[in-house]
Amino acid sequence: MTLSPTIQSTLQRYQSEISETLRRAVMQAGEVALRSGATDILSYYGLMQYHLGWVDANFLPVTGYSGKLLRPTLLLLAYEAARAEDGSADSGYLRHALPAAAAIELTHNFTLIHDDIEDGDAKRHHRETLWKQWGVPQAIIAGDGMFALARLTLWKVVDEGVDAAVAVRLGALLDRALLVLSEGQHLDIGFEARQDISVAMYSDMIGRKTGTLMGCAAEMGALLGTRDEETVARLRGFGNAMGVAFQVRDDLLGIWASTVESGKTVAGDIYRRKKSLPVLHALEHANAHDREFLHAIYMQRSPVMGEQAEEILAIFARSGTQTYCRQFLAEQCRLAHEALTSVPRNGAAVSERALHDMEQLVLFVQEMAWN
Amino acid sequence: MTLSPTIQSTLQRYQSEISETLRRAVMQAGEVALRSGATDILSYYGLMQYHLGWVDANFLPVTGYSGKLLRPTLLLLAYEAARAEDGSADSGYLRHALPAAAAIELTHNFTLIHDDIEDGDAKRHHRETLWKQWGVPQAIIAGDGMFALARLTLWKVVDEGVDAAVAVRLGALLDRALLVLSEGQHLDIGFEARQDISVAMYSDMIGRKTGTLMGCAAEMGALLGTRDEETVARLRGFGNAMGVAFQVRDDLLGIWASTVESGKTVAGDIYRRKKSLPVLHALEHANAHDREFLHAIYMQRSPVMGEQAEEILAIFARSGTQTYCRQFLAEQCRLAHEALTSVPRNGAAVSERALHDMEQLVLFVQEMAWN
Repeated sequence: MTLSPTIQSTLQRYQSEISETLRRAVMQAGEVALRSGATDILSYYGLMQYHLGWVDANFLPVTGYSGKLLRPTLLLLAYEAARAEDGSADSGYLRHALPAAAAIELTHNFTLIHDDIEDGDAKRHHRETLWKQWGVPQAIIAGDGMFALARLTLWKVVDEGVDAAVAVRLGALLDRALLVLSEGQHLDIGFEARQDISVAMYSDMIGRKTGTLMGCAAEMGALLGTRDEETVARLRGFGNAMGVAFQVRDDLLGIWASTVESGKTVAGDIYRRKKSLPVLHALEHANAHDREFLHAIYMQRSPVMGEQAEEILAIFARSGTQTYCRQFLAEQCRLAHEALTSVPRNGAAVSERALHDMEQLVLFVQEMAWN
Repeated sequence: MTLSPTIQSTLQRYQSEISETLRRAVMQAGEVALRSGATDILSYYGLMQYHLGWVDANFLPVTGYSGKLLRPTLLLLAYEAARAEDGSADSGYLRHALPAAAAIELTHNFTLIHDDIEDGDAKRHHRETLWKQWGVPQAIIAGDGMFALARLTLWKVVDEGVDAAVAVRLGALLDRALLVLSEGQHLDIGFEARQDISVAMYSDMIGRKTGTLMGCAAEMGALLGTRDEETVARLRGFGNAMGVAFQVRDDLLGIWASTVESGKTVAGDIYRRKKSLPVLHALEHANAHDREFLHAIYMQRSPVMGEQAEEILAIFARSGTQTYCRQFLAEQCRLAHEALTSVPRNGAAVSERALHDMEQLVLFVQEMAWN
């Protein structure tokens, strides 16, 4: 997705700290492996670095795209929002939460590595995906290791003075999120072969698949900042709603984006026959004739023709699909906004700034619901 | 592998407690998912139960093979060995360690699910493997979720009264073990395409791939039983050596087993062109002519003929390969025995019995080195 300048500045605030923590985590693991004997193992960490956008396929450094770091940023914003004390000028208080921020980004990237295999996606950010470059077995293994590395990185919160009981709770949150996310991925893959997917089933699935990890990020950050359970619950609710909102925004862009605006093809998700929110709505609400047409297109294997895509856009228009999807997005944004306004205020300046930034995130996503 | 009656009784001692803890872990996760709404998700836990040998492909209960539970048994033996106090008659003290035992078994099974994909193995214990039955994407996802579930199960030690700081250390041990195990799997898959694998490289690889998780099991058990770091280190050393010993025993059986003894085909690993210890030794120590023959066979893609397998067995005989592999196994057993005898004795009866049982495990594996 393309981001507006306002959001860019929020996302860039912690960029260097998060990137540095991520690099240190991966590099240290490689160094431990090297000290243990086998130089061959460095290629293992090379695969991880390739996926993270740090090196090319020959493991030579590149400066390319290396992620928006949305989830770790959300974690740090929630941490700041929950903290009652203001930090020192040098923002040194962030170090208590940075291991958790790096852990959530590594976890997210582990799921991307495996998703690319499961979806058969050959490209990510204009480069070959890991399985395409090194084969499915090595890509599975790189993902597994990155998941383990994510949690090894998390445990560093204990070195930063975080209580062991809080660390266990953070670990359990991450594990629970991954289990629920896997449930969502299981449903998503299962949906591909089915014609009877309702909007309600889809909504439940994306809640698990994309809401959960954003909710987990916000909850982990909040837990690092406070013991107040209401604050923690509100911020988790915010993350969950934002995760679903970002997904529905992507679903909208997948059909109605102009190329200039988003870098996406108009009706791209129609050509990909992706069972996202718009088509599931239309399958429920179009007239019998249109529904039959949609079923025929989404069941075929040959490429979707331009004329067919036009007809599907017309069906969406007749069925009030775009309006419905925008309302769905607006509702998620309302939930996110409501969660934010219910966070108990603690008066700290750093907390107010973080809540303000999170409100900006909501406004940014909400724009899609108004356009 | 086939096990002798003596070993069977040791392995059966905790069988019902471990199985019950495992079942509860998987069932509870399914129930949480069900309460959260989507009944479709039950098929996700159905896949896990299928792999664990509890249900058939229609998710109907079966009583078939469900694993030897070697790693959780080792964990509980190490726990008993490390405990200075004797338990009550009803063995209720085991419950402090059972969540960790279930976690190590679920972790092991997660690696098997992914290994089967990576190795392209279509059968496990006479049934279709998960990827063969439900496709690679769903098998990857089932493995990922089982890994998350393993750690969620581990956290139950805290409910059993284990200190949070110890729980964090257990979590970190499991994560570190998984990372090192993944390094080993990365090397193993990489070795398949190479002709320059030395015995030293192979030894390092199996140390990571099979030694690490057994070492981790023993270390986790020990940590639950004692704060004495020397005891913990010795028991980890025992587990590591046993892991490597079991692998080399499998390598020996893969070439020289009689079908009756092990359920394996004679020279089975030759027909599979598996680069296990015997052929790697022969490639280093055979004469130039024999080495050329081995290279030719292990580089071809057509099936290995009976005559060729006979010739390879003759090359192994000429190169002293079986003797070398037996010495390698004997050395691992010596290391395991030495680790056991160095465990500081604490005088508790339950501890003595556990150490005695572990000694029996060594003797059992060692038999292969004498035959």
